[in-house]
Amino acid sequence: MNNIKNTENSIDLSDKLADYKKRIQNYLSAKINPRRPFSLYDPIHYTMSGDGKRLRPALTLLTAEAYACSIEHAIPAAAALELLHNFTLVHDDIMDRDDTRRGRATVHNKWDVNIALLSGDGLVALAYETLLETASERILAVSKLFTQGLIEVCEGQALDIEFEKRDDVLADEYLEMVGKKTACLLSMCTQIGGLLANTDAINIQHLKQFGWSLGIAFQIQDDLLDITADQHTIGKDFGSDIKQHKKTYILIHALEKGTDTQVKKIRAIYEKPNIENDDILTVKDIFTEIGAIEHTRELAADYFSSAKEALREISTKADVTYLDAFLNLVLNRKA
Amino acid sequence: MNNIKNTENSIDLSDKLADYKKRIQNYLSAKINPRRPFSLYDPIHYTMSGDGKRLRPALTLLTAEAYACSIEHAIPAAAALELLHNFTLVHDDIMDRDDTRRGRATVHNKWDVNIALLSGDGLVALAYETLLETASERILAVSKLFTQGLIEVCEGQALDIEFEKRDDVLADEYLEMVGKKTACLLSMCTQIGGLLANTDAINIQHLKQFGWSLGIAFQIQDDLLDITADQHTIGKDFGSDIKQHKKTYILIHALEKGTDTQVKKIRAIYEKPNIENDDILTVKDIFTEIGAIEHTRELAADYFSSAKEALREISTKADVTYLDAFLNLVLNRKA
Repeated sequence: MNNIKNTENSIDLSDKLADYKKRIQNYLSAKINPRRPFSLYDPIHYTMSGDGKRLRPALTLLTAEAYACSIEHAIPAAAALELLHNFTLVHDDIMDRDDTRRGRATVHNKWDVNIALLSGDGLVALAYETLLETASERILAVSKLFTQGLIEVCEGQALDIEFEKRDDVLADEYLEMVGKKTACLLSMCTQIGGLLANTDAINIQHLKQFGWSLGIAFQIQDDLLDITADQHTIGKDFGSDIKQHKKTYILIHALEKGTDTQVKKIRAIYEKPNIENDDILTVKDIFTEIGAIEHTRELAADYFSSAKEALREISTKADVTYLDAFLNLVLNRKA
Repeated sequence: MNNIKNTENSIDLSDKLADYKKRIQNYLSAKINPRRPFSLYDPIHYTMSGDGKRLRPALTLLTAEAYACSIEHAIPAAAALELLHNFTLVHDDIMDRDDTRRGRATVHNKWDVNIALLSGDGLVALAYETLLETASERILAVSKLFTQGLIEVCEGQALDIEFEKRDDVLADEYLEMVGKKTACLLSMCTQIGGLLANTDAINIQHLKQFGWSLGIAFQIQDDLLDITADQHTIGKDFGSDIKQHKKTYILIHALEKGTDTQVKKIRAIYEKPNIENDDILTVKDIFTEIGAIEHTRELAADYFSSAKEALREISTKADVTYLDAFLNLVLNRKA
């Protein structure tokens, strides 16, 4: 049995995602808005009312529904995953000294570092509170998985900070970091959806693989879009990763595979305190010469294929129509 | 039946506490030491190997034992409570810009703010991981209580930050803040001990009251010791709260009850950027004139009595010998 259909349901999916987003928003507003003190809950409310795509809770809800589990049953866990994701954003923004996120001032910029630090802590606390509202026999397994995810996210962030100070980071190390920082949370979203729908261990394994591969693909794609996307589509500066001297998969691969001359040129530009648009075009040309962009595109495609493969396995027990549409939505995103 | 005995078991208790401390330390070392990356786990190991009294896990273990529950059964939860407490210390130290704690450099001082922020997050994650290792039918209730505690600790810290900016904080507001910041965690320790020992809801209520009253008494006593203790005993500067312009119960009460002249004098000193030892003696004299020290001592005594009263109720179902000795240990501490 193979339930993957070649559907034309992109409009259908976007309606569904909009509906999910509204439900999660209502659930969170009812939880956060009545609380005091304001100095804690105002920044939390601000964070959770940003213009996020709510991809993570969507992944949990789509997975639960794929196994015919009701949305209501999975809403608290889905909301908890969104709270946890936002905790990482608030604390990462402090550490990265980022002034804006999704076009708005970051919490530490709008308030101050102490308030941002504390409201991040509050988001973790609310995430657990929300998760534990889940009425499921498997709540203990869900909570353990959720906690494992939180640990890996912290480890991934620690690696990210370590890598900033090193100029010899290997591609495999980078992928380990992305696995912990991004893919782990996405694979938690799918696994928790499956656990709440009471599916078996083998399916949980496939769901893990699906979320994980999608997460790595998503992050590598992010690196690619920064340098290949149309500037107006992506909504942020072209080459902003390069401007911020950030390590991306493309860069690491180029440094590993380039000739001495090519590597020297790239390093010379990355060492400049202010990297200009012309520099970015130069770096992009060298990346192209080395084949780093093409290689990175192939790597992302490999991870997308791995996610597709996992979905094929999942389809023997679940209706994966919408999960497949979701994967395609991510695969084809332009920003 | 009343199990409170007038025992001479202080040596006995201190042996027990030393044994608890060693067990908790071994449990945590086995958990933390093998982990990577070092940039996350080294500061966590450093934090957890400080010279803390381990009062919180002791309270959980003493409570569990009072109901004849084995120590082994309660060790993970007790260790989780210590991890959670240390998370609050690491993040509070960042917010308060404190350079030292228990005679050692704070994490953000020894490493940097980012590492301290992240290792605090890691401590929360480890706290949940450890808690969820508890093999108990009541693990869901325990986890919910633990999470409620985490939320209240965040709310208490938010109030503390708010109060720093206000000069009209009322005594009741201060007690609410202390309740959330300190007493809540101690009442969690006793309640979780009781839950793991499978005691009934009425006893959990008494355990809550015991931990709560002890926590408030403990904090008010802290305020008192800062200004009344022998300098060599307390191991920190005499009047350090005043030097740091901190709001204490004594100060708030004095500002509420003092005459205009007395209040004016106190405010004049608190507004000085550098408060000298002579200033502290002046403030102490005014506090004494107003009766603020005496009143605060009575308030602490009231909370200790309330804890004693709760213990009397608990004694109908449990052997409270050691809990009583523990209460006396806190009551009679000189530092």
